[in-house]
Amino acid sequence: MIRMYDLIEKKKHGGDLSEEEIHAMITGYVAGDIPDYQMSAMLMAIYFRGMSAQETTYLTMEMAHSGDTADLSGIQGIKVDKHSTGGVGDKTSLVIGPIAASLGVKIAKMSGRGLGHTGGTLDKLESIPGLSTSIDKDRFFEIVNETGIAIIGQTGNMVPADKKLYALRDVTATVDSVPLIASSIMSKKLAAGSDAIVLDVKTGSGAFMKTLEDSIALAKEMVAIGNGAGRRCCALITDMDVPLGRAVGNAMEVTEAVQTLRGQGPADLTEVCLQLASNMLFMAERGTIGECRAMAERAMADGSAVKVLADMVKAQGGDPDYIYDTDRFAQAPVKREVQATADGYITHIDTEGCGIAAAMLGAGRIKKEDAIDYSAGIYLHKKYGDAVKKGDVLAVLYTSDEGRLAAAEEKFLSSYTIGDAPAAEKRLVYARVTADGVERF
Amino acid sequence: MIRMYDLIEKKKHGGDLSEEEIHAMITGYVAGDIPDYQMSAMLMAIYFRGMSAQETTYLTMEMAHSGDTADLSGIQGIKVDKHSTGGVGDKTSLVIGPIAASLGVKIAKMSGRGLGHTGGTLDKLESIPGLSTSIDKDRFFEIVNETGIAIIGQTGNMVPADKKLYALRDVTATVDSVPLIASSIMSKKLAAGSDAIVLDVKTGSGAFMKTLEDSIALAKEMVAIGNGAGRRCCALITDMDVPLGRAVGNAMEVTEAVQTLRGQGPADLTEVCLQLASNMLFMAERGTIGECRAMAERAMADGSAVKVLADMVKAQGGDPDYIYDTDRFAQAPVKREVQATADGYITHIDTEGCGIAAAMLGAGRIKKEDAIDYSAGIYLHKKYGDAVKKGDVLAVLYTSDEGRLAAAEEKFLSSYTIGDAPAAEKRLVYARVTADGVERF
Repeated sequence: MIRMYDLIEKKKHGGDLSEEEIHAMITGYVAGDIPDYQMSAMLMAIYFRGMSAQETTYLTMEMAHSGDTADLSGIQGIKVDKHSTGGVGDKTSLVIGPIAASLGVKIAKMSGRGLGHTGGTLDKLESIPGLSTSIDKDRFFEIVNETGIAIIGQTGNMVPADKKLYALRDVTATVDSVPLIASSIMSKKLAAGSDAIVLDVKTGSGAFMKTLEDSIALAKEMVAIGNGAGRRCCALITDMDVPLGRAVGNAMEVTEAVQTLRGQGPADLTEVCLQLASNMLFMAERGTIGECRAMAERAMADGSAVKVLADMVKAQGGDPDYIYDTDRFAQAPVKREVQATADGYITHIDTEGCGIAAAMLGAGRIKKEDAIDYSAGIYLHKKYGDAVKKGDVLAVLYTSDEGRLAAAEEKFLSSYTIGDAPAAEKRLVYARVTADGVERF
Repeated sequence: MIRMYDLIEKKKHGGDLSEEEIHAMITGYVAGDIPDYQMSAMLMAIYFRGMSAQETTYLTMEMAHSGDTADLSGIQGIKVDKHSTGGVGDKTSLVIGPIAASLGVKIAKMSGRGLGHTGGTLDKLESIPGLSTSIDKDRFFEIVNETGIAIIGQTGNMVPADKKLYALRDVTATVDSVPLIASSIMSKKLAAGSDAIVLDVKTGSGAFMKTLEDSIALAKEMVAIGNGAGRRCCALITDMDVPLGRAVGNAMEVTEAVQTLRGQGPADLTEVCLQLASNMLFMAERGTIGECRAMAERAMADGSAVKVLADMVKAQGGDPDYIYDTDRFAQAPVKREVQATADGYITHIDTEGCGIAAAMLGAGRIKKEDAIDYSAGIYLHKKYGDAVKKGDVLAVLYTSDEGRLAAAEEKFLSSYTIGDAPAAEKRLVYARVTADGVERF
């Protein structure tokens, strides 16, 4: 008989939990036999003592199998999943999914919604009139088989252990633990059933991991778990010190994703998407990284990638004309130009503050229950490194509710830093982590 | 608005909680506004990060004032309290209380019951027919004013914060943290209202603190808290590597306490009691430690100390003839001699195992609800350091229930170690901790 008390005591003293002990802990917790107050003490002990790679893998596998798991064998070809640790203006899924799918990779993706300063892919897609992300399994498989890609919400009772654990970590200050983050992300990816996984681990002020080394440590842990579970897995460490692209807000981000798919997107977003897409193709064994990148560039140039997105939108009940002509998206009725308050250079953008300003305009949820205003958001005219003169338009804020403007503008302005000297150049992608090791760029 | 989440985060990173933050935490927890799962995460963070002396004092004061506090101003003279961190065969309160009271110190003591391997003073006293430990405040004061001493159970709603926190620590493996132990003990002592406090901090295998240095650290923390709260306070570090005295079990311990009060007790118990009593008298400013010890020895020799115990028993409704003639205590109907299984020397007694064997015989509670068999227990004929021959009687087990014998005997025997060479001599009292520092013996 394994007692939770003894497991807490063991971990507190730095001991390793066995597979059997982790099994007892997770099944007992999901069943309600282990109370929250014991689990939170364990989580804090894990925060201080860490977990070995072996323990983290046991924990991930146990969580992945705590509920329903997706069997994607009904989809032909190699299924590749992608996960981002989250950010502001991060619309990469809407770009790299269609690129990879246009080249024969199968993308059967379950996504989430936005909360706090970060957006969610489902919310972005739902800004397209008619589009549904609640699709049953048979139709989901059918769409992926036909168009190469579908993006839906989580179905069934998947990874209940993570749902329960995450809710507890969120209120007990135990979120920021590498083994707990890695097992949370990877349990969901393993349960989602794809053959290979590309991880986009964000680093910088707007990311969960603020330093490059922490981000690499998390990436290594996740790649090891994926490999241990028999999945091909790699990670890119990408910048989230500033928002990605220029659009923050749901319909505006769909528009920017389409521009990028056409090769007309912002340079930073385009580069990050090309690298992520190359790695997805590489995981699906379509060639070397260089060959894969060339294929991705061609799919953007020849219009095949944007067509896949339009086909997916149509298959999911949405109006594909919004993809072919993004001017159809309703513009927000209220807009406000935000001007630079001084001459100089943009030396910092507080990504989180920028994301919260967008949410305050209606683009996101401050609280879980909040409704989304799809047309709301921020378009960044000046970004990190740009020279500005006093009065230049830094950004335009969009909303349907004029009453939201003042507070959002104040929040947004305080997230920009204008300095006297040009800012140092920033990398977009810092490193690539694979089973073979870490390649730094 | 202080949020518990932020306090956990602060402590997790090694920050110091302010007086205001600790106030919010304890009042919020006692009121039920802060859930157990947040408090247990905090307790584990405290286990790893510790607390400063200042934080520990704030925590103790906040806990002490979380419920009713005793106002002992109705008792004349200097009130001195004593606390032991608990052990097996520890009947010192029944010896040193009467000694100090016979010399004019006022002992208005609230005691506890036994659980697990340790006994409790209330259970020992209740083995005397008629004696009650549930006495209202007015009568309690009256007895102390008349006889110099009364020992009762806790009244009213004292230190509810400690009750709630201790119950949580007990199931989340967060008991063994010096600031948490110190604040738990001292909050109860401060709420109990005496002017001075003598602490008996046990050290060794049968004690909570297994090493001398840990015991000294705990003692220093508690003395500092006591001084910080304006109470005179000192601590002795005493041995609990082996049981104290020869009797383990309620009526048997009362008998041994009476023998010791008469100067006819076991040498180890007598010495520890004399040192503790000297310090109680010293705290009450009755002279130097040497003078106080001489006074204590006289009180034992002239019969005045045993008379005070008999008077207290009578005042609390018990039959004082049991004190004057301890043969009146009913002998347990079943007894079993336990014999040495080899020639050699007693090199170790597992104090905890010995205490559990006594509880299995009926002398204690394995579970909170268990009833006590006052006549049950163990009398140790051979103790640490004694030479034994195979077949010698090590101890006699007493119980009213023959069915309990076999398992208790097995447990008891496994707690004795017989070695080939004589064991090293043990100290009884290792150190004395006062506001001035640590004096090692």
